[in-house]
Amino acid sequence: MERYDIAVIGTGPAGLSAAITATIRNKKVLLLGSRDLSLKLGKAHEIQNYLGFPAVKGEDLAAAFQNHLKQMKIEITEKRINAVYSMGDYFALQAGDEMLEASAVILATGVVQGKPLPGEEEMLGWGVSYCATCDAPLYRGKVAAVVGYSPREEAEAAFLSEVCREVLYFPTYKEETHLPEAVRVIREKVVALENQDGHRIVRTAENEYSVDGVFVLREAVSPGQLVPGLPTEGPHVTVNRNMEAGIPGVFACGDIVGTPYQYIKAAGEGNVAALSAVSYLDQKKRL
Amino acid sequence: MERYDIAVIGTGPAGLSAAITATIRNKKVLLLGSRDLSLKLGKAHEIQNYLGFPAVKGEDLAAAFQNHLKQMKIEITEKRINAVYSMGDYFALQAGDEMLEASAVILATGVVQGKPLPGEEEMLGWGVSYCATCDAPLYRGKVAAVVGYSPREEAEAAFLSEVCREVLYFPTYKEETHLPEAVRVIREKVVALENQDGHRIVRTAENEYSVDGVFVLREAVSPGQLVPGLPTEGPHVTVNRNMEAGIPGVFACGDIVGTPYQYIKAAGEGNVAALSAVSYLDQKKRL
Repeated sequence: MERYDIAVIGTGPAGLSAAITATIRNKKVLLLGSRDLSLKLGKAHEIQNYLGFPAVKGEDLAAAFQNHLKQMKIEITEKRINAVYSMGDYFALQAGDEMLEASAVILATGVVQGKPLPGEEEMLGWGVSYCATCDAPLYRGKVAAVVGYSPREEAEAAFLSEVCREVLYFPTYKEETHLPEAVRVIREKVVALENQDGHRIVRTAENEYSVDGVFVLREAVSPGQLVPGLPTEGPHVTVNRNMEAGIPGVFACGDIVGTPYQYIKAAGEGNVAALSAVSYLDQKKRL
Repeated sequence: MERYDIAVIGTGPAGLSAAITATIRNKKVLLLGSRDLSLKLGKAHEIQNYLGFPAVKGEDLAAAFQNHLKQMKIEITEKRINAVYSMGDYFALQAGDEMLEASAVILATGVVQGKPLPGEEEMLGWGVSYCATCDAPLYRGKVAAVVGYSPREEAEAAFLSEVCREVLYFPTYKEETHLPEAVRVIREKVVALENQDGHRIVRTAENEYSVDGVFVLREAVSPGQLVPGLPTEGPHVTVNRNMEAGIPGVFACGDIVGTPYQYIKAAGEGNVAALSAVSYLDQKKRL
């Protein structure tokens, strides 16, 4: 299997900056995320403090970032990473039912906004899942609920509808959904997830729905969930000033390491994380 | 006297980014440095990893920064700060024979490249000075040497020549000098400074010159010299992840806080330093 030097997870300013600097330093980089970059950035009305771009629209700044990637021939691989495992000498990145390998990992997945749903954490692994591609086979012929935090999650719900008997889709956003007819869209606010007599209950402000499994699909997953054993503080990865994240070979940057949630701060940290990863790899080679 | 909320010392990417963010947050900002911004940036041949500007010339990136300042109506005050003193409730900034006041200070003066000259540190205050404007009166009618690290220092040497009997100017750079005739330019490499029988000796590879005082003028002064009592590690200010610099109300960002010496890292840190300074001021107001 192809082994990358550095896997960068996330395509916000932190991940892009990290990928650019690691590429300049001649490392073999796997940049994982969305070709549309960061949803948050693209939607930003106006950004005033990204030095060099006065009063820029989010979409224009994103276009400048895209152009930078293009000039440097850096490709984005559109795979969602569900977990990163330390294998001693390298890291295994689980992307659905596929495994990827890298010698170092830079986490730049952003921060999970808001709290988990009541009951979500308790039911993790017991009827609550974050990965439709991984866990769909468990619900073949059964009823699944999907709580989708962005239109990007609709593809996962559509995929589930090919496997499950019924899929209930609870969007937390206002945009119109584009889903196959087999998916039942329910525009009610989910207030809790519960276990009841071997079934899962999705409780909304108005009703309750009995299902076999619940998929909670957000743009970012919590870091402790992404990298088992990673030191965290609430929703943030604990890092030092070199962006080292407590597990040798793992680095983090951007919103995932804490406030302020600012684009230029994220880009600066991506640069530092990349240079720390480069020096980690160079040191390992010398041993 | 006018008291600023935040004095930002330095006009490289860190200082500019800090000034922009502090201005957005409605603080009264005094940005101190050069209207030509950073010499290092302006001379950079090509910068590849400032996210959003692929393969940009230093002068073009500097022009983008200038435009950002202009759009936000942020002015640069061209004063060199020789020392920052904590006055309890505020800071006094010594600019030659003038004192400026600010409630918080952000240090973004870059890093002193290279080692001090042999003898320089031992003779500090005993014949070696870093501020012509401050110490010129000590050498009225006497002979002064100036070791100038950039063409910007020539104005100081010219000023000294109005006060001193003789000024010897040792440029460490290759550019042509533009100095009054009264200044004697000596293109020899200074290798040491010494005290000898009440005189100071400037020793070059070829000769030795006996003078009354020596001015060593670099673009950046060392942080411990700029802010007496500031915790430092070698040439760097010690900061935490919030860019707090060990003295309440003092923040630092950019090359001055350590490697990597990278533009995007500096800009990111400037943003963090500004937001930390804002929250320091807001907290003080609440007390």
